[in-house]
Amino acid sequence: MTATSRRNRRAFDLQEATALLARTPPLLDAWLRGLPDDWVTAHEGGDTWSPFDVLGHLIHGEEADWLPRARQIMTSGDACAFAPFDRLAQFEATRGRTLPDLLDEFGGLRRQNLAGLAALQLTAADLDRHGRHPAFGPVTLRQLLATWVAHDYDHVAQIARVLAHQYSDDVGPWRAYLRVISGQPG
Amino acid sequence: MTATSRRNRRAFDLQEATALLARTPPLLDAWLRGLPDDWVTAHEGGDTWSPFDVLGHLIHGEEADWLPRARQIMTSGDACAFAPFDRLAQFEATRGRTLPDLLDEFGGLRRQNLAGLAALQLTAADLDRHGRHPAFGPVTLRQLLATWVAHDYDHVAQIARVLAHQYSDDVGPWRAYLRVISGQPG
Repeated sequence: MTATSRRNRRAFDLQEATALLARTPPLLDAWLRGLPDDWVTAHEGGDTWSPFDVLGHLIHGEEADWLPRARQIMTSGDACAFAPFDRLAQFEATRGRTLPDLLDEFGGLRRQNLAGLAALQLTAADLDRHGRHPAFGPVTLRQLLATWVAHDYDHVAQIARVLAHQYSDDVGPWRAYLRVISGQPG
Repeated sequence: MTATSRRNRRAFDLQEATALLARTPPLLDAWLRGLPDDWVTAHEGGDTWSPFDVLGHLIHGEEADWLPRARQIMTSGDACAFAPFDRLAQFEATRGRTLPDLLDEFGGLRRQNLAGLAALQLTAADLDRHGRHPAFGPVTLRQLLATWVAHDYDHVAQIARVLAHQYSDDVGPWRAYLRVISGQPG
């Protein structure tokens, strides 16, 4: 592998971002499909989310957040703010469903949305176009698309944390070495 | 999905732990194989690790840590401390290798080690057997095996963090919503 001069930042590249986004459904599938229900619905206590809840949230993002907002920027810029995103919509939408069903739906929606993104034929100049976020105002299309990727990883890290949390007691003294459990910066 | 009374802890179960451990190589494969080199070698700055480095570390764990220590507990209990684990061994061991090569090796070793674990035919009583950790002393076989699982997830979360970190600037004001980047508890 070749070293690069700046290995802690990558300039945003639409083709790379698309490649990263395409990998999230298969990664979650390889990880979660077929796990016992008690792991799929495990959480960190209180109102925290399970892997099942996270899947529902990612599906809702495909339906209501990323590509719809990208299209809004391309068609009407910052004329209107984005519709606020409901971070709790999945609890109603996923009631009675199964994880394999959610994995299938997420995979299908992501494929469809990446095809929709490609169809926009975005140019470098398009990435600088502005939209308006309902909470913090002006954002660029580049920021929206970079956030789509980082948001996937926020939830991948969350699933790792939720699953590891289940063994918080069982790991005994090793807890000190496991920042995913201890919450300590490592 | 059915609710369980205690969704934030799972009692350690060898069969479940084995199922979780078996999923880590395919999950990393789905995520990382074929990514551009600059993503595979990306890190968080300074001496932090890239996904490539993490893979090397996981391989070294399969060779020198988990199953060898489990076998030591079964054959000689806590008579001798475990050999210390070299957390930097991968830098020498992976020099000049490729990520697909490391993914193949990790998958093969994990499969082989889970077969080796099954061959030990551990009983519930065996899980209470003691070994001796070179730094913090007495540990049980159950703690070692639970840590094997949680350690995988520590590094899954790390890879998510390293990749998301690359877009730390590109996400703009969304940074506040992304704990994988901000480091804030959410």
